[in-house]
Amino acid sequence: MKAELLAIGSELLGPLRAETNSLWLTERLLDAGIEVDGRATLADDLALLESAFRGALSRADVVIATGGLGPTADDLTREAAAAATGRALRRDPSILDGLRARFARYGRTMSATNEKQADVIDGAEALRNGRGTAPGQLLAEGERLLVLLPGPPGEMKPMFDEEVLPRLRARAGATRVVRRRVLRIAAMPESEVDEVAAPVYGRFENPRTTILGAAGQVELHLVAHGDSVAEAEERIEALAVELRAALAGRIYGEDGRELPHVVAGLLHERGLRIALAESCTGGLLSARLTEVPGVSAVLDRAFVTYANEAKVEETGVDPALIEAHGAVSAEVAEAMAEGAMTAAKTDVGVGITGIAGPDGGTAEKPVGLVFIAMTGAAGARVRRNHFPGGRERVRFQATQVALEMLRRGLLGLPPM
Amino acid sequence: MKAELLAIGSELLGPLRAETNSLWLTERLLDAGIEVDGRATLADDLALLESAFRGALSRADVVIATGGLGPTADDLTREAAAAATGRALRRDPSILDGLRARFARYGRTMSATNEKQADVIDGAEALRNGRGTAPGQLLAEGERLLVLLPGPPGEMKPMFDEEVLPRLRARAGATRVVRRRVLRIAAMPESEVDEVAAPVYGRFENPRTTILGAAGQVELHLVAHGDSVAEAEERIEALAVELRAALAGRIYGEDGRELPHVVAGLLHERGLRIALAESCTGGLLSARLTEVPGVSAVLDRAFVTYANEAKVEETGVDPALIEAHGAVSAEVAEAMAEGAMTAAKTDVGVGITGIAGPDGGTAEKPVGLVFIAMTGAAGARVRRNHFPGGRERVRFQATQVALEMLRRGLLGLPPM
Repeated sequence: MKAELLAIGSELLGPLRAETNSLWLTERLLDAGIEVDGRATLADDLALLESAFRGALSRADVVIATGGLGPTADDLTREAAAAATGRALRRDPSILDGLRARFARYGRTMSATNEKQADVIDGAEALRNGRGTAPGQLLAEGERLLVLLPGPPGEMKPMFDEEVLPRLRARAGATRVVRRRVLRIAAMPESEVDEVAAPVYGRFENPRTTILGAAGQVELHLVAHGDSVAEAEERIEALAVELRAALAGRIYGEDGRELPHVVAGLLHERGLRIALAESCTGGLLSARLTEVPGVSAVLDRAFVTYANEAKVEETGVDPALIEAHGAVSAEVAEAMAEGAMTAAKTDVGVGITGIAGPDGGTAEKPVGLVFIAMTGAAGARVRRNHFPGGRERVRFQATQVALEMLRRGLLGLPPM
Repeated sequence: MKAELLAIGSELLGPLRAETNSLWLTERLLDAGIEVDGRATLADDLALLESAFRGALSRADVVIATGGLGPTADDLTREAAAAATGRALRRDPSILDGLRARFARYGRTMSATNEKQADVIDGAEALRNGRGTAPGQLLAEGERLLVLLPGPPGEMKPMFDEEVLPRLRARAGATRVVRRRVLRIAAMPESEVDEVAAPVYGRFENPRTTILGAAGQVELHLVAHGDSVAEAEERIEALAVELRAALAGRIYGEDGRELPHVVAGLLHERGLRIALAESCTGGLLSARLTEVPGVSAVLDRAFVTYANEAKVEETGVDPALIEAHGAVSAEVAEAMAEGAMTAAKTDVGVGITGIAGPDGGTAEKPVGLVFIAMTGAAGARVRRNHFPGGRERVRFQATQVALEMLRRGLLGLPPM
């Protein structure tokens, strides 16, 4: 089965942000084994909408429109869909009563303009809207299905899940189940991940794998179909086992948690507390770790030591060390980590010092050069990094590497 | 003039991310006075594409397709557009020579599959591609214009600007210029901004204003048309003057800078240095301020004092104060700001303490309660906030309010 999606509303056609209902619907439809062949965003124009409905209905098995079901003059979805299918609209008395009752509950009288929200395409089934005024509509025309849903995501999503998806599954004969898993890898370029992973996942038709590069990390999206949940899960696991082996400890998560959550969890499990001393990242590592609820059990303080005096005064870095090696050096990174650990009396310390740019780089110490140190009972690990990109990217990558170093250190994996 | 945009390629129809060429084109077209009535993303399917081209060409003055001009079997844009316009494709010998020469430059021989990139719709003009192999195409059919552009943004954008936009401007009779400005307001809900701003901008047809709510701030996008740059700028300024008056000092920027940049700039101009003590925001304010290049002149250190002992040890908060009022209190926020200022010997201090959630709230001190203090020569300002939303939103809003408090304090504006 093939679907086309129409998102209706002139307000969706500005240059500022993309329409999002369609992305959500695409994921839901793919899970039901229905591919989306077209997604359109359309202005509130009757002739345009009628033509678009006609086109989509001539091609797709399922056409789902969102938006344009409100009470105002530019809400034209009902009229356009009726015209495109050559059917009339009839006003449904029970929906009308429901609308009036809803207004009464909020102590208001319904104006006449709202009545058109009770108009249903002849032969269509009205879909209950538990969260707003506009009901949805579902029209079966032989093999084809036309679905009209309200635009607000808070109304559209539950209506789709409760009223539409079961009917689509039945139609698609979808006794097939879909399972998905996302494997995440930090601090490794997308091209390097794909070089290792593609020869593995390329051998699998089911699950299908998509690789998605995000800031400082790469995601492998695995989607498997099966006759049962167990079969789909088994298929996913069969590929995941091989990817884990090929990527040798580089996959940090498969359960939806982001890297800071994974690291905070490892510290928690091991009963270890951490302290941070950040220079070029300016508190970003601390901000990311404290995004994790309950992190106070493992982190009670952190230092942003931007200036040399701050490094000396707050984390006890020996000024002679800065003099000898420069503030951006492996030695100072390690001393910062040690100093933070000592000041906060913790088990683990992290020190980050580098040149985030855009200025401050030299031939010897260019922009993007960042030293990251991790200290603890098992000794110190220091890594020299040269990150590409602008200030924001350099800083974010530095926090990703620091977190990945922590993860590997805590798990007893060798340094990267 | 009305335009429709078709983004072609099955890879654009996944659930993971929205297609972006269309947003960029929409902005460019609006600047040329051409409205976009429809945007579609379409799979690589010949019948689907032909039908979609036919539909769009029956409705719009300009149809612009991106993608599907490559050499592979699923690049079908040329064929579909030719079929929809009832025209033949002819292989252009000079384009063919150009393709061969390009391959030769990279020391490769062109395979036969690449030859179809030299196919041009009968009557269409080929558009030079300086950055890739696929040329674009432009076909005028009476009043209507069909444009085919390559999908990679790095090829599409310059081709549009250099080859297409001048022709569209000429067609639209667009000697008109467009100027835009974005007014930003922090720490004020979108509904409150609009309540004040809508009666003002609603009186203006030119510029047109769009309001956009983002995390912790609201943007007013003003777009003006004029016969000259000066006229368009004058129109923008006429509205901006009124909005500034209506919003009484709440607009923090009109020049593209985000709030941390504005605050860092104010500190810099006044020769003031700042220190931070953050509890629930965990370094997020420091991370945001240090995003600004050159911030080291005004910020040399910051403290994340999550635990009570850290507040006492690092920023000298009196334990009796915590005992008496609780760590989440106006008194402790102010003591943290004072303490950070003293420890770092700066002119200005900020203290933030609150309950970011999801746990830790009580009836008296619920999740979302955050006290923010600013201290300095002009005395202390403390604000009690109760932010809605989850942990991430609470924390971000707290940094926005802290920055807005700093901005107002530094400018000598009264507290919010």
